[in-house]
Amino acid sequence: MNTGKRALLLVAHGSRLPEANAEVAQLTERLREASGARFEIITHAFLEIAEPDIPTGIGVCVAQGATQLWVLPYFLAAGRHVRDDVPALLDQARERYPHATICLCEHLGAEASLPELLLRLAKGNPA
Amino acid sequence: MNTGKRALLLVAHGSRLPEANAEVAQLTERLREASGARFEIITHAFLEIAEPDIPTGIGVCVAQGATQLWVLPYFLAAGRHVRDDVPALLDQARERYPHATICLCEHLGAEASLPELLLRLAKGNPA
Repeated sequence: MNTGKRALLLVAHGSRLPEANAEVAQLTERLREASGARFEIITHAFLEIAEPDIPTGIGVCVAQGATQLWVLPYFLAAGRHVRDDVPALLDQARERYPHATICLCEHLGAEASLPELLLRLAKGNPA
Repeated sequence: MNTGKRALLLVAHGSRLPEANAEVAQLTERLREASGARFEIITHAFLEIAEPDIPTGIGVCVAQGATQLWVLPYFLAAGRHVRDDVPALLDQARERYPHATICLCEHLGAEASLPELLLRLAKGNPA
């Protein structure tokens, strides 16, 4: 039986704009508030430019006792990053942490309820 | 009384990957299916790289009879594009089409229910 912790790692691209990276950190905080008891660990990492990078983010989760990791790509399109770069990093992490189970979630752009969420953004009247 | 049509214009960054731009077109189709009777016109445009560009997208809506436009930035972060580039294009469009009301919605990353949507993506068990 697996008695380790469950971790959710939100993976964003990373920006040269510090405030854009700060938005990801704020979203991680909101994820913690919204997740209830489902994940003992929720943190984020960046593919490029910003830190922590993805290997570091996975390492942090494992060091905190995670044995089941869900990696959630905060990307709108299934481009090269989502299709190739993130999976390659996860393969390396699986070799490094064979006792952990690392699952790659679908990217944000694939979520079926995205249209409803977008329509909520357009709820106001034109100014 | 305003008897013109209501239009929703989804604005994405635009990618060099045709399949990423095709994802935006598919999302526009899903928006049409999800919106019911709320918008008579739903289409998309790109800020850079891909076509149609934003002035063209607005022009298409106006040519189809839109007098109320909601412009919805399909962006995760409030970077330069969301803060400066898209609003500047909308100001130009307001001068060009003074009879139309053009409203800039919040960008996707600001939607309050985003954490719940992300948690749904992590609903599966690790493989």
